[in-house]
Parts: sequence; C-alpha cells; structure tokens
Amino acid sequence: MARLLTGKEVSASIAERVRADVSFLMEKGITPTLATVRVGNDPGDAAYERGAAKRCEALGVCCRKIVLDENVSQEELISVLESLNKDQSVHGVLLFRPLPKRFDQALIENTLVPEKDIDCMTDLSMSGVYTGRDIGYPPCTAEACMEILDHYGIDCTGKKAVVIGRSLVIGKPAAMMLLKKNATVTVCHTRTKDMASVTRDADILIAAAGRAGIVDGSYVREGQTVIDVGINVDAEGKICGDVDEESVSPVDLALTPVPGGVGTVTTAVLVKHVVEAAKKTVLL
Amino acid sequence: MARLLTGKEVSASIAERVRADVSFLMEKGITPTLATVRVGNDPGDAAYERGAAKRCEALGVCCRKIVLDENVSQEELISVLESLNKDQSVHGVLLFRPLPKRFDQALIENTLVPEKDIDCMTDLSMSGVYTGRDIGYPPCTAEACMEILDHYGIDCTGKKAVVIGRSLVIGKPAAMMLLKKNATVTVCHTRTKDMASVTRDADILIAAAGRAGIVDGSYVREGQTVIDVGINVDAEGKICGDVDEESVSPVDLALTPVPGGVGTVTTAVLVKHVVEAAKKTVLL
Repeated sequence: MARLLTGKEVSASIAERVRADVSFLMEKGITPTLATVRVGNDPGDAAYERGAAKRCEALGVCCRKIVLDENVSQEELISVLESLNKDQSVHGVLLFRPLPKRFDQALIENTLVPEKDIDCMTDLSMSGVYTGRDIGYPPCTAEACMEILDHYGIDCTGKKAVVIGRSLVIGKPAAMMLLKKNATVTVCHTRTKDMASVTRDADILIAAAGRAGIVDGSYVREGQTVIDVGINVDAEGKICGDVDEESVSPVDLALTPVPGGVGTVTTAVLVKHVVEAAKKTVLL
Repeated sequence: MARLLTGKEVSASIAERVRADVSFLMEKGITPTLATVRVGNDPGDAAYERGAAKRCEALGVCCRKIVLDENVSQEELISVLESLNKDQSVHGVLLFRPLPKRFDQALIENTLVPEKDIDCMTDLSMSGVYTGRDIGYPPCTAEACMEILDHYGIDCTGKKAVVIGRSLVIGKPAAMMLLKKNATVTVCHTRTKDMASVTRDADILIAAAGRAGIVDGSYVREGQTVIDVGINVDAEGKICGDVDEESVSPVDLALTPVPGGVGTVTTAVLVKHVVEAAKKTVLL
C-alpha cells in the first residue's frame, strides 16, 4: 500500500523555522516584507496572491499587494519594479506571470535584482540554481520538493533520482538541486523512449510532466519515493496530479498526494525566501 | 573493435564554416578579433594561448594577446576587461583561469559582458546554457562534444545519454546541451553507486571525470558512442583520457581518441564563437 507523504507537516516545520527568524528580525526592528505585483485580474494569479498573503500574515511577514491595471505600460511596470528594488523596506518581490504578451518578458523579468527575486524569475537567479552559487533563490516549487525529501529523512546521496519534465520551473531546477544532494540524476521528457523502464529504476521520482495520471502503476516499483508536482484538472473537474493514485496505490511506496502535497509546501517556501532575504540585509 | 571518431575532420568542418563567415565579415569591413588576457606566466595558459593564436591566424581571425604582470592589481585587471568591453574592434575575450587566489574571482569573471564571453565565464552566460536562452556562449569543450556528435551524424533524440562529471566546464553544460538535443540525460559523479551499470545503459557516454582510465571495458557495451573529454597524464608521463583505450578496444563502439579527439575541436569552437560574436555586431 502506498504511504502518503503529506505536505502539511512539512510546511508546519518550515513555518516553525520561519517564525524564529521573524522574531529575530523583529528584535532588530525589521519587518520582513513581500511585495506582490499583479497585472490585470487573472483568477489564478489572484488566488495565489490570496494564498501568499494569508501565509505571510500567519507567519508575521508583511505582504504588500500591488495590482496594476491590465493596460499598464511597460515603462510603468518597469518603474514599479525599479522602485521596489530601491525600497529597503521590501525584501522579496513576486511578479505574477506569464505577463500579457505585449510586454518584453525577459526585459521585465531581469529588471528585478536577484537579491529580491524569491521565485527565480531573473537570468542571474537561474544561473545560481545551475552553478550552485549563492545568487537569488530557486523556484519555490522545486525547493518544496527538496523540503519534502529532507523532512521525511530521505537521503539522496548515491540514490538514483529521476525527474520527469525539463521546465525551468520544476524539471531543470529539481535536477540541479538533486545533483547538489549527490543523487545520480536522470531527466526524462516527452521525447524519452520507454519512460516507464527509466522511472521504475529510480529510488526517487519527481513527476513534473504536467499531464494528469501519466505516472501509473507500470512506472513505479516498491520502495520508491514519488513526489508528484502535477496540478491538473481531471475529466470530472477535480484537481489531480501527474500520478494516477488509484493505479499506484497497491504498490508499497511513499507518495505525496495531490492536493495536499507539494502545493501545500510551496507558499511556505516563498515566505521562507522573503525572510532569508530580510536576514541577509541584517548580515550585510 | 572500437572505431575512432577523430577530432581533426570535425575541426576542419568547423573551420570551413568559420572561413565563410570571416569572408562575409571582411566584405563588411569587419575583422573578427579575439583578445586573450593572461596574468603571469603559467605554462599551460601560455600553451593554450599559442594554440588559440595559431588557430585564429589560420582562419583569418585577429588575435590580440594581452599579458599582465603576475603582480597586476585587481583594479588594473578589471580596468583591462572594462576597456575590452567597450572596444568595438574586439568581439571575444578569453581570460585564462584560474586567476591567482588573491583576486575576487566572481567579481572579475562577471566584469566581462556576456556578448564577448566566448568561453562561458560569466554568471549570465551560465544561465544561457541552463535556460537555453541566447545569452553568451557555452563552454568550448562542452560544445566541442556536441560538434563531434553532429559531425558523425549521431542523433540524440530519444537516446540515453550519460555524462560522467558535474563540473561547470563540462559535465553540467554537456548535460544541458544533450537535453536540448532531446536525449534522456543522466549525470553521474563520484557519489554514484555502481557507475558501470549506469554507463553501460547509455547510447551516448560523455566521460569528463578527469581521472585517467576510469572508463574501462566494464563501463561500456557494443554500439555505444563514447566521447572522452579527459586530458590526464599517465604514470609514464603520457597524455591520456578518462577512457582506458586498451581495455575498451575489443568492444564494437565508437570512441574519440585522446589526444586527437575533443581537444582538437575545442579551439575551433573558440574561434567559431569569436566569429559568431562578430556576426552579431553586424546584425544588430
């Protein structure tokens, strides 16, 4: 029977560490502060914004919402980011993306300084994930996967880790982070042949294909740890992961549920990054 | 019997393309120009400098040697790089590294603009390799491996590629480039368990461990393509690769020799990058 690795206790443990850091900062007179920047009224962005604000509030982190009209000019958006770069009371900035297509995405993304780039939007933050150097922060979802492995005591050294997906949001950063944890890392994707034979060989499997139920019983074997990053909507309109839970459930493995797994940890990591960024301003 | 994939004909084919580009640029009144920057008198640096200069000359690319006293100050070195950034007659800059330890390596490396960073020294160029975006140039040796695969008509799509080594000079960039070529990519390293079983499973094996003869007959199987990136010195003082050629020679596979393989292609790629950088100034 598959054992569930729930996200709730992982985010609770992160929250505990974050609260201690917030107290430390408050004693120094610093209120760690996140600024969210949203263009227009995408319901997904608004929902994530509410989730982040709620989590910030619960942890004593200030959250400043900036909502710009959907017709805002590129220059105005850049000027908002530039003023957040300069604003010493703001430690982390989350810009909701993708932006409307009329914007020069790369130009806007790279306007933010990596020091405040808490969800890996800038090219320099990407290079930090790739090189392992201390520049910016990794994407929150990829780091959430690592937090789950750490929390449940899954040592990666010498293990075979397989990542399904090669996006910059999950696949590639997760691969880099697993490599840093000394796993032997394989990246699979849509062009991989006989993917099931590759994934069955894994000790740790990270499913980030973005396709509902792609990982069925034939993809797994007993003893594996399976982290399901997918957030998909199934035929009945229900949220589901990349793992077909019913199909893998007879197998004796450990699995993060969807919902209630990685997604639950992601905003905790986001707030953790804000607090880490604030701590760095004290140590400077 | 192992079949040899020699570097000479690969670099000849690159040279042909480069010459055509140089003619095009000359017609526009542009002489593609490399500037090499060396601090002190390390014999390895000096040898590579000679090799690069010779290759430039053969291809009609101008090579400007800058040699700085080993006691040069950090400020002077930075000012040299800054003036090369501004100098429109210079298209590519190669700074020999590692620099003496008294320097702030990251600061100096990131002084160069990525547009002239023909051997992937800056953080932004690294991010280009990682994200696949058009920023800077990949490390010449990693790209030399890809040139060899291309030249010998080895299609990577859907193939299993295994890279031994996770350095920023070869292992990681080669993994990223193989992923871009749609291979299923595995990265092995010193902490990998039973490496031979992983490498035997590869269709394409890139050996960049930097340890003489680590890849012996037990690591390979027939039908594989093996790219040997190692440049080591054996007990008798002879240059040798990471592959134990004698041990693998009975196996029916394709192998790049050392010397005469990847190393032969690397400076051709370097000059190609200089010419590509010069072409971009025309197209701007």
